[in-house]
Amino acid sequence: MTRPQKNVIVAAQNAASRLADRDTPFVMNEWYVAAFGDEIKHQLLARTLLGHRLVFYRSTQGQVVALEDRCPHRSMPLSAGSLEQDTLVCGYHGFRFNTEGDCIEVPSQASCPKNVGIRAYRTHERGAVVWIWMGEPEQADLAKLPAQDWMQDPLWERSQGHLSLQASYVRLHENLLDLTHLSFLHAKSFGTPDYAKAAFETEIGDGQFALLRHVVPTTLPPVWAVPTGLTGQGQAARVVRSEFRSLGLHEVSVLFYDCHLPESERAQFRIRTAHMPTPETATSTHYFIVHGRDFALDDPATTRFMHEQLFVAFQEDVDGLALQEQALAHTRPEDLYELSVAADAPAVAMRRYVLARQHQESTR
Amino acid sequence: MTRPQKNVIVAAQNAASRLADRDTPFVMNEWYVAAFGDEIKHQLLARTLLGHRLVFYRSTQGQVVALEDRCPHRSMPLSAGSLEQDTLVCGYHGFRFNTEGDCIEVPSQASCPKNVGIRAYRTHERGAVVWIWMGEPEQADLAKLPAQDWMQDPLWERSQGHLSLQASYVRLHENLLDLTHLSFLHAKSFGTPDYAKAAFETEIGDGQFALLRHVVPTTLPPVWAVPTGLTGQGQAARVVRSEFRSLGLHEVSVLFYDCHLPESERAQFRIRTAHMPTPETATSTHYFIVHGRDFALDDPATTRFMHEQLFVAFQEDVDGLALQEQALAHTRPEDLYELSVAADAPAVAMRRYVLARQHQESTR
Amino acid sequence: MTRPQKNVIVAAQNAASRLADRDTPFVMNEWYVAAFGDEIKHQLLARTLLGHRLVFYRSTQGQVVALEDRCPHRSMPLSAGSLEQDTLVCGYHGFRFNTEGDCIEVPSQASCPKNVGIRAYRTHERGAVVWIWMGEPEQADLAKLPAQDWMQDPLWERSQGHLSLQASYVRLHENLLDLTHLSFLHAKSFGTPDYAKAAFETEIGDGQFALLRHVVPTTLPPVWAVPTGLTGQGQAARVVRSEFRSLGLHEVSVLFYDCHLPESERAQFRIRTAHMPTPETATSTHYFIVHGRDFALDDPATTRFMHEQLFVAFQEDVDGLALQEQALAHTRPEDLYELSVAADAPAVAMRRYVLARQHQESTR
Repeated sequence: MTRPQKNVIVAAQNAASRLADRDTPFVMNEWYVAAFGDEIKHQLLARTLLGHRLVFYRSTQGQVVALEDRCPHRSMPLSAGSLEQDTLVCGYHGFRFNTEGDCIEVPSQASCPKNVGIRAYRTHERGAVVWIWMGEPEQADLAKLPAQDWMQDPLWERSQGHLSLQASYVRLHENLLDLTHLSFLHAKSFGTPDYAKAAFETEIGDGQFALLRHVVPTTLPPVWAVPTGLTGQGQAARVVRSEFRSLGLHEVSVLFYDCHLPESERAQFRIRTAHMPTPETATSTHYFIVHGRDFALDDPATTRFMHEQLFVAFQEDVDGLALQEQALAHTRPEDLYELSVAADAPAVAMRRYVLARQHQESTR
Repeated sequence: MTRPQKNVIVAAQNAASRLADRDTPFVMNEWYVAAFGDEIKHQLLARTLLGHRLVFYRSTQGQVVALEDRCPHRSMPLSAGSLEQDTLVCGYHGFRFNTEGDCIEVPSQASCPKNVGIRAYRTHERGAVVWIWMGEPEQADLAKLPAQDWMQDPLWERSQGHLSLQASYVRLHENLLDLTHLSFLHAKSFGTPDYAKAAFETEIGDGQFALLRHVVPTTLPPVWAVPTGLTGQGQAARVVRSEFRSLGLHEVSVLFYDCHLPESERAQFRIRTAHMPTPETATSTHYFIVHGRDFALDDPATTRFMHEQLFVAFQEDVDGLALQEQALAHTRPEDLYELSVAADAPAVAMRRYVLARQHQESTR
Repeated sequence: MTRPQKNVIVAAQNAASRLADRDTPFVMNEWYVAAFGDEIKHQLLARTLLGHRLVFYRSTQGQVVALEDRCPHRSMPLSAGSLEQDTLVCGYHGFRFNTEGDCIEVPSQASCPKNVGIRAYRTHERGAVVWIWMGEPEQADLAKLPAQDWMQDPLWERSQGHLSLQASYVRLHENLLDLTHLSFLHAKSFGTPDYAKAAFETEIGDGQFALLRHVVPTTLPPVWAVPTGLTGQGQAARVVRSEFRSLGLHEVSVLFYDCHLPESERAQFRIRTAHMPTPETATSTHYFIVHGRDFALDDPATTRFMHEQLFVAFQEDVDGLALQEQALAHTRPEDLYELSVAADAPAVAMRRYVLARQHQESTR
């Protein structure tokens, strides 16, 4: 019967009040992924982002259009309407909108009223990814989008996928900042038992949070062992950097090499994974993923093999975080507290930062 | 990025506060349709009307009985009990009620306590329809039930149906008062492109709201063209009157004729549709429909053809209004506003009237 | 239109405010059934009791372990983790707990922090049943567990089962204290028409509530007639005692005999049923049942026959109480009232007692 003392619980609950969680309103002034570019065609796509219902389409010129998905006349979802060239026609009474969200026709009258329109959102397509800015338009600066050169670099091979997470995006960022969980949540996929116990360093900066782990020597799981050829027991080094780069992007960078060879003779193998969570609702998240490698280029079989193995592991995160979200939802508030350990420092700092960002927005 | 200016949004939100919507308590002092007569047999039928759970049956004398569907002893739904002759026996402890709602037997004791009973509701069967009065009994005046002679007239041919609408009944009335939507929501069924642009007049009275539209010349959709023979391109006149007659009845009356013939030689074809919404909950509605015509009498094949075509269209309303309801439910309050145009005048006046009726009831 | 007068309704609503219902917080300081012993094996079993999520397993020594089902680190359900010997390992970051709920390992660091742990609950296995005490540990006195000798007595034959009830446990206790309902809810299973009208006595004590009914002479339903041989019309006596023994245990004891034989020549047949409701949530209940008899021992065919017949009847309670719960949930508060009759006296006293127990706990 060793539940912590009441003062420990109260202290933990007080600490939690300074951390972002699913009750924290979304931070709007940030670039988030809206979709992969190949999802957006010359047809209407409805998607809820940051609690807002949007409709997307690609114009005849190839531009991504993102509009509010609600006709301001009688609230019909515009995604249930039709696309005529580059204009969107409401399926209820035929109000017509252009790509800027201006209403340009009301069929029941000869002249279209002024001052009727819907919000159009700024988007930016880079590589496979369409980013969106849903905050204050005047702050939509592309300089705020973290660099991600490898995602467009022809010397990297990539694959991508999209999962539906029934949990808060905050908990996904937290998950990614402490990969201790590889030994447990991913014990059957890409984790190994020694991972959790390996030495780690943390980096905590202003809006940049990282955890580095040197797992050396280790035995690689098949997803890495097969394509690198580092298949021996205890043959490999696995050096991992998990970094929160923005609310919309967490990057995991891994270096593999044969730790029994001298440094000069080592082949180096690098992989990177962009984990791009976009809140849908307080407890659901669009989870976009791009995975890349700088070896075995032009090798579709390896791409396919790695993609399949990786998405088994990412699904484990999705399943686990949904269970965590349910436990959070069904625990009585007085019984709810969480205790942190050293490896949680970057995640805790990140959650403090997210809450501060939200406070900053709401008090402007 | 042309969302309306903040002052336009605020003005629209203020205007909406004077209109009935799904948050408006139901107006009880009104005749609503409870059921079609052929739904009520000598067996128990449970149905929720205006947020109240009722149980219906037809007595051995053929009278419709409408009672509260909850035993006042231990809250068991009486519709889960049994009907014995004209008495209803609770399936839990056997309390027995007569058609007036009086408890007449408690099996566990010799004498039945006084002052135990359930509410019995006044009903009125007219033609195919069973009307119910759920408000103050002393106000249940049949004179308040709008005339509907054609619904019993032997010179009219009729068919009927019942749909389940997952939206507020207020939005169904609104839908019916502006048939502009025929060109869009019903583009594939009984709407035509010219409908929305046709000239219209509005009538706004005290509890009576109508919109008239002259679509002349026009090409009729098959549902009207086939039975009238007005199949030519631009051959027909379509003169439509949509009228809110009470909270329980909206009537659409249409006149068709060949607009190329002189007035004296024209055959006239009339159809009428009684749209009878009865709220179930704040966001669901029993949608009863009777459709009639004054031509092609005694022609069951035409009746069947028109009924099938019409119910495809009415289902489009049901599907569209459910989408609208979802958009209303999932839009943040601060982002929710609706802008009206000239054709909305009758619907806006109707919604103002419904709210006034409710206020009047709640302050008596 | 005979709904009771307003003052009758108001009086009933005031009376209800002194009775426990689904809104009454759970009484924690009581022994409740957690599970049947054969449900708990050397593997993890998740179950919600009294609104708390628990995880159960049987240790390698055969002891039942009951722990909070939430890792205090990051709220992962521990039931999604793994059992290693007698320790439970969280499936997220590998925190390890012993059977007392102490955290004994945090894989990402060499030393395990103090003061991390989860609550372990006291359990007591008796016969087929595992009891649990979720209240204040210092009050967990086995003397508070009502005697239940027949449940372990070798001279009694038993069978057991477990139903999921979508209703408050309070309403199940209420159901059991007035078996008038046998003639109606169980008309097709083990009720007979004369049951409800038979003479009854009530006993109302301090936390002990009972109703006795003498149904003499009567015709037994097959579940009792077949195994006792009392198959004749009006041949049998059926003497029933329903007794609330604690919030976790209601016992029904029945004596059958041939009422046409003189007392000295009568064979007596006794059955008992332990109805053991454990709240899951406010409106759902784990319903554990043990049924025993003191005749036809060592006769598995009779056990099977009776068990099947009985569980048809118990399912009727489960179905009926779920309908009652729905009616309670969907009736407007102003329209909700319940009127009691003489046979309700023990149940009303019981509900008053349960509320008093809860008040007593909450004000300590």
